[in-house]
Amino acid sequence: MEKVFASIITIGDELLIGQVVDTNSAWIGQELNKCGITVGHRVAVGDVWDDIWEALDAESKRAAVILITGGLGPTADDITKPLLCKYFNGKMVVHEPTLIRIKAFFEKLNRPMLESNNRQAEVPDVCKVLLNERGTAPGMLFEREGKIFISLPGVPHEMKWIMENHVIPMIPELFNTGFIEHRTLLTAGIGESYLAEMIKAEEAALPGHIKLAYLPNSGMVRLRLSGFGSDKTILQQEVAQQFETLKQRVAEYLVTDEDIPMELVVGQLLKSKNKTVATAESCTGGYIAHLLSLHPGSSTWYTGSVVSYDNLIKQKLLGVSKETLETVGAVSEETVTQMAKAVLAVMGTDFAIAVSGIMGPGGATPEKPVGMVWVAIAGKEKVITRLFNFRYTRIRNIELTAINALNILRAFIVDNG
Amino acid sequence: MEKVFASIITIGDELLIGQVVDTNSAWIGQELNKCGITVGHRVAVGDVWDDIWEALDAESKRAAVILITGGLGPTADDITKPLLCKYFNGKMVVHEPTLIRIKAFFEKLNRPMLESNNRQAEVPDVCKVLLNERGTAPGMLFEREGKIFISLPGVPHEMKWIMENHVIPMIPELFNTGFIEHRTLLTAGIGESYLAEMIKAEEAALPGHIKLAYLPNSGMVRLRLSGFGSDKTILQQEVAQQFETLKQRVAEYLVTDEDIPMELVVGQLLKSKNKTVATAESCTGGYIAHLLSLHPGSSTWYTGSVVSYDNLIKQKLLGVSKETLETVGAVSEETVTQMAKAVLAVMGTDFAIAVSGIMGPGGATPEKPVGMVWVAIAGKEKVITRLFNFRYTRIRNIELTAINALNILRAFIVDNG
Repeated sequence: MEKVFASIITIGDELLIGQVVDTNSAWIGQELNKCGITVGHRVAVGDVWDDIWEALDAESKRAAVILITGGLGPTADDITKPLLCKYFNGKMVVHEPTLIRIKAFFEKLNRPMLESNNRQAEVPDVCKVLLNERGTAPGMLFEREGKIFISLPGVPHEMKWIMENHVIPMIPELFNTGFIEHRTLLTAGIGESYLAEMIKAEEAALPGHIKLAYLPNSGMVRLRLSGFGSDKTILQQEVAQQFETLKQRVAEYLVTDEDIPMELVVGQLLKSKNKTVATAESCTGGYIAHLLSLHPGSSTWYTGSVVSYDNLIKQKLLGVSKETLETVGAVSEETVTQMAKAVLAVMGTDFAIAVSGIMGPGGATPEKPVGMVWVAIAGKEKVITRLFNFRYTRIRNIELTAINALNILRAFIVDNG
Repeated sequence: MEKVFASIITIGDELLIGQVVDTNSAWIGQELNKCGITVGHRVAVGDVWDDIWEALDAESKRAAVILITGGLGPTADDITKPLLCKYFNGKMVVHEPTLIRIKAFFEKLNRPMLESNNRQAEVPDVCKVLLNERGTAPGMLFEREGKIFISLPGVPHEMKWIMENHVIPMIPELFNTGFIEHRTLLTAGIGESYLAEMIKAEEAALPGHIKLAYLPNSGMVRLRLSGFGSDKTILQQEVAQQFETLKQRVAEYLVTDEDIPMELVVGQLLKSKNKTVATAESCTGGYIAHLLSLHPGSSTWYTGSVVSYDNLIKQKLLGVSKETLETVGAVSEETVTQMAKAVLAVMGTDFAIAVSGIMGPGGATPEKPVGMVWVAIAGKEKVITRLFNFRYTRIRNIELTAINALNILRAFIVDNG
């Protein structure tokens, strides 16, 4: 067994100037991790010949496998392929299966092929081609002095397809990796430093090959145990045992012992109880609905939402009384209570979430500052409400409102479901 | 004038194993760019002493300013602060203003302070402290051999606050930067390679200090011109002139000449015409509503949505006929037409979007494969429909549906508004 390290090199000015957020690297990191490969280093460079070359040199000294994403498009700013050709002393040749794919692609679209599309079928003769069935830029694998270099397109769904269909299946043949075991739990209602104080003894007692990490997000804290070892069964047992100890210690604040997002915790809970939920959203504008419907199969426990961004819609579709809106206003306990009850009745669900608040930057008054949010959770026999004051940026206020509303629903289902 | 390069070092195992997507770097890249500083290199390392040390050494050779994010929390896995202290030959001292802030923070929450929170007020005596008014971990600025090192917390809103209030205001004092000017336009309905072919002559005629980049996304392509120069006025004129040429060349496919997302293009168009929109969403589950309401001031042109995830809700809230649902089904031209008309009437808007489709992975039939989506756009006098076949992953299908539906609405408003 060997501990295998990978490096990721991402190429493209758009990443460095921040026009595009790099989501590829996180995905690759997760997938390699599952195969027992640790991403130890990641570097982003622009579309600059010397920088790419230097990154290849440097990362091949650190890692056994170097993944390169981006810079493979048909346009003039893409220099990665000719660079790799030179780096590995190859010459460009046409890759027939890719050319056939590209031709078929253009025939299907009934569009003429361009010279630049022809060039997309060219690859260095020193690489193994990883056929891309999702696009026109092929993946390429190079080997030198026992190091593996894999070049992938930057378009996320193309990169993922090549990873899943070519790269990941190869890993057991290429490396005698050890095993990595992660277990993650989510807590709510306790800050990072209190949590650290609370589990001090458990953390100190961890063996050297099991590491604890704190991942705070949206006012909640995730705890992750990561173990490394050569025997999968033993490792899993060791990590499971430490995880159980940790879980019991933080039981009071535990939301879930799986590494899944809050909306899926709620979804699984609803599914297990054969119950449904609907939402009535003002300030979150459909974001809770989006989270709930993001996951396959959510239609069994999620029916829909009324996004009543305009107050008139609150009256018309949710029957919030004009008097309530005129006296206490849209951001009030009374309004969210009426919204939750109405959407529960209209959608015929077991539970409902209603939210109304000031997300900012505009819309605040002295009594109702930015970040003030009322949340109501309705069941068939009971409605509860909660007031929050987030006071962050608009996007963060929306996210915090959604995650916290879902967490209140979760607790409500546990107590009343 | 000097061309000033920055490097970003992000610290944290959670970034490398992909548990967290690095959005900080994109934001920092954008902000520095506006100040004329180019991020030329970015590196992500784990919570590993030697890797962080080595990254500091390497990046200080490349860049004039090195930004470090992450690794500053109160817990045991955070080693960045002691490392920086040693790297710059300092010793730890209590920073009184930060200690006062931390004490006040805990008093306000009525919680006891822990030893670990006390340590958060400690800083190396060789740094300039950048007070963090959004959290307990201060920012720190170090200088060595003319290079600036800035350490920031990894929590995005804390990092942004310190950047906006300390770092960015300092830049004109620290560096005699040149100017960078970006202009971006968005095209739809033409692939990257056709676009490249179309603007070949314009691209070839660009002067050396103005660069063109292609940024394909969601089936559309953004073109970005980036110019660099010492005279702001001249540079802006040069870039504006090239941009105008480019704009005219691609006029037929032009969506917007601003660097804004599709939903804002639609929002600005609606606002300029004093019109409103509502949505009726099935397969996108509230994602279009979320995009429309994400931006401040959207309540003037966006009223709300009915997310009819369940077919019963399509009948009940949108009056889609039972017969339609039983004969042609929910994913049909007839259903989306009825949905669009209904939501337009119920919400009293000028325009409406309705979508219904199969997002996958489940739910497909031979006649209705994954990625098949019907979109209807309603105005007061006319409804148009469009059929799409995306066939990607669930999330990508949702995104593509939303962006393309918004683009059809945009064209519809231009034609019928």
